[in-house]
Amino acid sequence: MNRSITLLLLVIQLVLCRALAQSAAIQRIDPTNWWVGMKNPNLQLLVYGPKAGSMTYTINYPGVKLVKTQKAENPDFVFLDLLISTTAQPGIFRIVGKTGSETVSRAYELKPRTTGPKGQGVSAADFIYLIMPDRFANGDPANDAFSDLLDTKADRSVPHLRHGGDLQGITNHLDYLQELGVTALWMTPVLVNDETLKQEAPDRMQAGYHGYHFTDHYQIDKRFGGTEGYRKLGQALHQRGMKLVQDAVYNHVSDDHWLYKNQPFKDWFNQWSAYTGSSHKEQALYDPYSAASDRKVLLDGWFTPFLPDLNLRNPFLATYLIQHAIWCTELFSLDAWRVDTYKYNDLNFLNRCNQALLSEYPKLHIFGEAWVGNPVAQAFFVKNRIDQPFKSNQPGGLDFVLYDALNAALKETFGWDSGVNRVHQALATDAVYADPQKLVTFLDNHDTDRYLSVIGDDYAKYKMGVTWLLTTRGIPSWYYGTEVLMKNTKNPSDAEVRRDFPGGFPGDPANKFTDAGRSEKEKDAFNFVKKLANYRKNTPTLQSGKLMQFIPQNGTYVYFRYDSSKTVLVATNSTEQEISLETGRFAERMAGFTKARNVLTDEVINSLITLKLPAKTAVVLELTL
Amino acid sequence: MNRSITLLLLVIQLVLCRALAQSAAIQRIDPTNWWVGMKNPNLQLLVYGPKAGSMTYTINYPGVKLVKTQKAENPDFVFLDLLISTTAQPGIFRIVGKTGSETVSRAYELKPRTTGPKGQGVSAADFIYLIMPDRFANGDPANDAFSDLLDTKADRSVPHLRHGGDLQGITNHLDYLQELGVTALWMTPVLVNDETLKQEAPDRMQAGYHGYHFTDHYQIDKRFGGTEGYRKLGQALHQRGMKLVQDAVYNHVSDDHWLYKNQPFKDWFNQWSAYTGSSHKEQALYDPYSAASDRKVLLDGWFTPFLPDLNLRNPFLATYLIQHAIWCTELFSLDAWRVDTYKYNDLNFLNRCNQALLSEYPKLHIFGEAWVGNPVAQAFFVKNRIDQPFKSNQPGGLDFVLYDALNAALKETFGWDSGVNRVHQALATDAVYADPQKLVTFLDNHDTDRYLSVIGDDYAKYKMGVTWLLTTRGIPSWYYGTEVLMKNTKNPSDAEVRRDFPGGFPGDPANKFTDAGRSEKEKDAFNFVKKLANYRKNTPTLQSGKLMQFIPQNGTYVYFRYDSSKTVLVATNSTEQEISLETGRFAERMAGFTKARNVLTDEVINSLITLKLPAKTAVVLELTL
Repeated sequence: MNRSITLLLLVIQLVLCRALAQSAAIQRIDPTNWWVGMKNPNLQLLVYGPKAGSMTYTINYPGVKLVKTQKAENPDFVFLDLLISTTAQPGIFRIVGKTGSETVSRAYELKPRTTGPKGQGVSAADFIYLIMPDRFANGDPANDAFSDLLDTKADRSVPHLRHGGDLQGITNHLDYLQELGVTALWMTPVLVNDETLKQEAPDRMQAGYHGYHFTDHYQIDKRFGGTEGYRKLGQALHQRGMKLVQDAVYNHVSDDHWLYKNQPFKDWFNQWSAYTGSSHKEQALYDPYSAASDRKVLLDGWFTPFLPDLNLRNPFLATYLIQHAIWCTELFSLDAWRVDTYKYNDLNFLNRCNQALLSEYPKLHIFGEAWVGNPVAQAFFVKNRIDQPFKSNQPGGLDFVLYDALNAALKETFGWDSGVNRVHQALATDAVYADPQKLVTFLDNHDTDRYLSVIGDDYAKYKMGVTWLLTTRGIPSWYYGTEVLMKNTKNPSDAEVRRDFPGGFPGDPANKFTDAGRSEKEKDAFNFVKKLANYRKNTPTLQSGKLMQFIPQNGTYVYFRYDSSKTVLVATNSTEQEISLETGRFAERMAGFTKARNVLTDEVINSLITLKLPAKTAVVLELTL
Repeated sequence: MNRSITLLLLVIQLVLCRALAQSAAIQRIDPTNWWVGMKNPNLQLLVYGPKAGSMTYTINYPGVKLVKTQKAENPDFVFLDLLISTTAQPGIFRIVGKTGSETVSRAYELKPRTTGPKGQGVSAADFIYLIMPDRFANGDPANDAFSDLLDTKADRSVPHLRHGGDLQGITNHLDYLQELGVTALWMTPVLVNDETLKQEAPDRMQAGYHGYHFTDHYQIDKRFGGTEGYRKLGQALHQRGMKLVQDAVYNHVSDDHWLYKNQPFKDWFNQWSAYTGSSHKEQALYDPYSAASDRKVLLDGWFTPFLPDLNLRNPFLATYLIQHAIWCTELFSLDAWRVDTYKYNDLNFLNRCNQALLSEYPKLHIFGEAWVGNPVAQAFFVKNRIDQPFKSNQPGGLDFVLYDALNAALKETFGWDSGVNRVHQALATDAVYADPQKLVTFLDNHDTDRYLSVIGDDYAKYKMGVTWLLTTRGIPSWYYGTEVLMKNTKNPSDAEVRRDFPGGFPGDPANKFTDAGRSEKEKDAFNFVKKLANYRKNTPTLQSGKLMQFIPQNGTYVYFRYDSSKTVLVATNSTEQEISLETGRFAERMAGFTKARNVLTDEVINSLITLKLPAKTAVVLELTL
């Protein structure tokens, strides 16, 4: 299309819009559809269009009752409360609005509930793989950029622009994930981020390539493959017995979100007389001595100047977001939710949202990102054992306490409270959590320096940390590429730790998805992770068995996973010298066993009186009689 | 006495002992007396003497019933369970033992209960002063050394020998303590340590000058002034309205303890086939994944080779120690107990002991030394809000978490989690404790580097930390001499932080107990502590008022103590530059107030819109309308 025609069309569009603005219309209804047979019979529709707020609404459909019509402050919005009885059948009905002589209507569909796996949850039997879809693999170069979006660029040469990765690219590599031992996929958000480039730093205009800048909750980004691409990926995962985790953001949206440009209520967003960023200081929530003003700055302060902060105390907004979460779970057959920026959200909203999801999908897992530094803080944001005024109902959470400890353990030399003591001590505080097995563990993610760089590019340390992650308690998760030794720090920017997976994009010089494309060391790393992840996958003891850990001594750290069927010993020598470890101390778990199989090497060990532990190595032994 | 006569007497003694060993006798009964009118009517007497275990006992005294006689494994011991009815009158009766034709007896006294203040507890209204009696003041040079004790030396020139300080020395300086604002005295133990010098380090033979090596629970060390000196000090304190705290050690005794040399049961002490020291790793207790063997090494391992570890699971020993604690409380009119090495003791014993004390003395305070590094660990050893298998009933504890934070805050520069954030974050985790106001706070003690040395001899920092200690929540405690700027680290040994108080000993070149004896800086320090401690003493708001703390910003840390009568603002500028602090953020606590009085300078501040905070200073302002 040449430029003059584009301009002409734009003018026609503008004229039409203005003309239509004079007439009543229903331009949009969210959720865009619903289902019969949900446990909660209530549904609140956000209806948008000129004069939507000044019309009288009727619905004529068996089993569906319009209970209440509530006006918003903005005359273009209205909220319709529906009651959907258990007798309602799938079908399409019209929502009719009248004002004076004008009558408008819009079709609305109640679908039958989808069948097949859904809301299965993820557990310590899973191994979650985290992908940033723009950066993993480009399965469809035709959808890299669109001229009708606010950001029309895709340019792999620029770290902060879109690179073209998509859901098809991921679907194409499910064999790769499954070979590695992955059982669940968590992607950074796939909802549309149709926004202008944002000034992320003084010297940097950045695209919403990471997905966290929602502009419409009811569209999957077409650059990723849209709704169909997402459903197709979900179906492919479930066909393989794998699970799907979606990434939620309740705290904020892009300033290009359609509901920021058109706000139903003045308090849809948290407003400040002058721009106020969040303090990021979660102490304000759990500190018994905190000030209301500090809680307000944490919760209502904005994440960045272009991420308007949602006011989750607005009851219509709260319902809007909760219904969206249920809509996604049902439509895309989600098994779990990861919740972004968990600590910045109104606590009552979070509990209400979690409860609504768990009520519909009792096995669903929810694990929020509360980036905190100590177990008391971490416990506050999940179901916990501390008797305190606010009680979270979140079943899980990302385990930042163990993340800190795993990395610190490998960076530090052994000392009274350092080195492997860090891992031991972090787990020792698990008494504060209702169920530490539901915490999602990790070595790195898209917001941290990459693991291999944190530990000084030391491959022996790499293997020790991977071994701990894949044999200790919790639900292990993995950041894409760490298995082929992708590294980097966030210096100079986040994009450094979000580089493209080598081989995922046309023209890549090497393809790390294939054994042939990997260096010898990358082969070794991939096979190491694969071996342990598949061992965990096939060993219920590592999933649901008990954990017993012993006080670290002289740089060694020994723990057991055990149940009535099996005992697995994990012994780490974090020192620079080989150690011959006497096992008498561990009789409580080793009595009766005389031999072992080294899970990583398949070597048979014929005496357990002492264990030969090479320097900087964690061995995994399955004990036998 | 010349040497030949001494030897002759020794031979006679030995001959007599051997002869007597053949005859039955009651040489000792512990507790050495008891009282009528105790809430618990039960009393278990440990009876010691040749053949004590093979006799039949009778007691003929109205209201006293011998309920049970229980033999020990050692034939020289027997345990008599008495029931003392509410009708029993004070008086002396004889405990009679018969075996064959032999009849022996020993007088036993039931005293009337002492009157006057007792079991008052200490609270956040108090200011506790910790003294090591050997190192504070020598009030009676005649009791410095005794030839009939195993350690006959007193030599101030040797850091690890006794220096001669005593209870009379302390009694002589109660005016000094009271001037400083002290309301309660805690001394390191005064029970007799009649032992040989111990090899504390390869190059160091050390006396039990610190008091933690008990050799007889029922004697006060005569080098400190004995029972009478202790009672006199207690009476003097109570006459002044001050309180007395005793230091308990349940974990171990000296290997010169008479009950180590004569053990009632083989399991009176925890025995190992080879010497095994405690791991000191308290994780073994609260870690849900810990091993029984690790718990055993922590609890039953010895503190040092010459400190036999008491087996608190032996029921006779448990009762022996509990009754001793009650005996001391009653006889010496104690108001609180500090419990040494709390984390090394059997947990059930501790709860039983605490309960027995609190049952007799409901207001008594108990605060143990559990030297740990995080709030989950610290909470485990006190009454807490964590739902976990073992629940401690200890009302208080020494606050090592805040101690760490106060010192770290002053050592570090301000950062995301460092500098004054350390204090803020430590207090923010208070939700785990049943009552954080009952924790005993401190800047240093006899086992740590001295505060002023920790903070790099920086007097501005010194004042900041002192201000926090004396204005925040908890029960503040103080280590002797820190008020006159005594300093030092534990390098090369503990004795460096246990130096004699200057002026407490004959011939001291300067007397820091008097204003005239202090340098200008020492005068300023003493007066600073005195001013704040007395302000706290006279300001209920600082004792029982609420605390509200704000998120630190730019190196400033602001908190309030407040109640319906008063609001006190504490604002710290930890940076090297003066700061003009806008107070709008603090409106929640400052609204309505227009002026303030600077508590430290008495300056009146006529506008509160901004506060001028000098570099490295904490100001304390009493707000006024």
